[in-house]
Amino acid sequence: MSGKIKIGIAGYGNLGRGVESAISQSSDMELVAVFSRRDPGAVKTLGPVAVHAMDDIARFQGEIDVLILCGGSKNDLPEQGPALAALFNTVDSFDTHAKIPEYFEAVNQSAEPAGNVALISVGWDPGLFSLNRLFGEAILPEGASYTFWGKGLSQGHSDAIRRVPGVKGAVQYTVPVDEAVARVRSGAAPKLSTREKHTRECYVVLEEGADAAQVEQAIVTMPDYFADYDTTVTFITAEALARDHGAMPHGGFVIRSGSTGNGSKQVMEYSLTLESNPEFTSSVLVAYARAAHRLNQQGVAGARTVFDVPPGLLSPKTPAQLRKELL
Amino acid sequence: MSGKIKIGIAGYGNLGRGVESAISQSSDMELVAVFSRRDPGAVKTLGPVAVHAMDDIARFQGEIDVLILCGGSKNDLPEQGPALAALFNTVDSFDTHAKIPEYFEAVNQSAEPAGNVALISVGWDPGLFSLNRLFGEAILPEGASYTFWGKGLSQGHSDAIRRVPGVKGAVQYTVPVDEAVARVRSGAAPKLSTREKHTRECYVVLEEGADAAQVEQAIVTMPDYFADYDTTVTFITAEALARDHGAMPHGGFVIRSGSTGNGSKQVMEYSLTLESNPEFTSSVLVAYARAAHRLNQQGVAGARTVFDVPPGLLSPKTPAQLRKELL
Repeated sequence: MSGKIKIGIAGYGNLGRGVESAISQSSDMELVAVFSRRDPGAVKTLGPVAVHAMDDIARFQGEIDVLILCGGSKNDLPEQGPALAALFNTVDSFDTHAKIPEYFEAVNQSAEPAGNVALISVGWDPGLFSLNRLFGEAILPEGASYTFWGKGLSQGHSDAIRRVPGVKGAVQYTVPVDEAVARVRSGAAPKLSTREKHTRECYVVLEEGADAAQVEQAIVTMPDYFADYDTTVTFITAEALARDHGAMPHGGFVIRSGSTGNGSKQVMEYSLTLESNPEFTSSVLVAYARAAHRLNQQGVAGARTVFDVPPGLLSPKTPAQLRKELL
Repeated sequence: MSGKIKIGIAGYGNLGRGVESAISQSSDMELVAVFSRRDPGAVKTLGPVAVHAMDDIARFQGEIDVLILCGGSKNDLPEQGPALAALFNTVDSFDTHAKIPEYFEAVNQSAEPAGNVALISVGWDPGLFSLNRLFGEAILPEGASYTFWGKGLSQGHSDAIRRVPGVKGAVQYTVPVDEAVARVRSGAAPKLSTREKHTRECYVVLEEGADAAQVEQAIVTMPDYFADYDTTVTFITAEALARDHGAMPHGGFVIRSGSTGNGSKQVMEYSLTLESNPEFTSSVLVAYARAAHRLNQQGVAGARTVFDVPPGLLSPKTPAQLRKELL
């Protein structure tokens, strides 16, 4: 009996690895199991931890305080989220914004009767950025909110480029437009179009014999992904792609520009500058796993989001310590 | 029966006026009464609202959902906080950091048996900055936290200068040192002394015949307030003081610089740029008054802080709306 919070990881990719690493920074938690759909023997974890087949996960009910779901939002979580919330307290980073309401309902229907807490859509966006959008409009009801992303690698947009015929490899960076950020920070509350807020920088490796002009045209005119942006395409070698674009930086800003009283300008800004996007998301998941465990101990059951979690529950410190040291 | 949250204001200075103004921006709230220790007939409010003598406040039990305490931390709140939390749900901005634990206990002992919620130390520091210090260390346990204040008018330091013999009027601005902020933002996690973080700029009007050099020396060597800082003193006329230094701007930054995984640097930053410090603090108080009312409706009683409040309770929107629109 260590008294530590027992964590399981479901799905071991970049996010799962980040969670393992974040748990090792948290002295009140321990990682008790990793679950994978791959052959458990083929999964190489960072530290010594048992790896089990995902199919065996139900056997671990009662041995895990919180299961952190590290699968993808597109194919894994819509199925795993509701299924696993029936067995464990869970935390996930479901990030398909438009589908959050239906995902919430599905997870809630399974977590609530089972007496489990399921914290959905935890990370930085959705997650910490969402919280700052909420604080912004709740505190400054007369004003405008802005979210800028980047400079950062966008996995979805990189994938979209890779599907263009003639493309062998690619990465895409989303870059906030400095001038737009400066205008918002000044308290000017401008109306900004999609094109005015972000540019998209693509680094592309061509297949042997592919037509560069044709590939570029296919990228910059791609609806939803690129057509509404100023997009630049730079062709590079496979070596340069591997050498210069292997990191996963990201970040961004949430800015609320409002006015109070007789027109006093008030600007609230939250920003993240991340060398590793998945590792940071994992660190947020782990702090919220602590909160999920405590909420469940208080008798809470059902789906919840960052909006429902008292911030103090994220910290290993006691309420009295927090008041003394951080308030 | 308007269905609106009924707010009372106890103490009508800069903060009380800001609360009145912030309530007028919140369609789900109404201001029902202002209480003052001055002659009620002499209190000029911004809008049409009844002003009553503070001594009559007990008669309004049951007519006010939340009372916002707008007195000072030094002389008013230590007495009013516990006394009024026995009668009403309360929100205050008690900001004497070192005395928060004892103030919390005193208010809790009075609020809890009465079945009232008392949210103490609400504002931006303590308040929003405290929350960001908590998020920083909970999410990035390996790292360092920094709080910078300013550029902003410090009331306490301005008062300290005014007590120096020979000083007729004065204001003091706290200014973060750009170079220190830049080093912290870079993720360098430097050790910074008090002197390296902030400078203090004083604008002073001398009494007729006062010795400028002597006044300057008395200011820059004043222990606790100025001795540990690089302090500049500029002598100005009474006209310039009135003309150029009447506003109450403030703000600052909370930065967490941490590392995850194999040394990836991660930087979280929260910043405020405020044209009116009291109006912004008032806007935070009003959003938390909404939360205090809802917590009390849920059956919560006793003293609480921003660490205990689920952020969703600050918004007039429903949980489903928040998930759909802001998550």
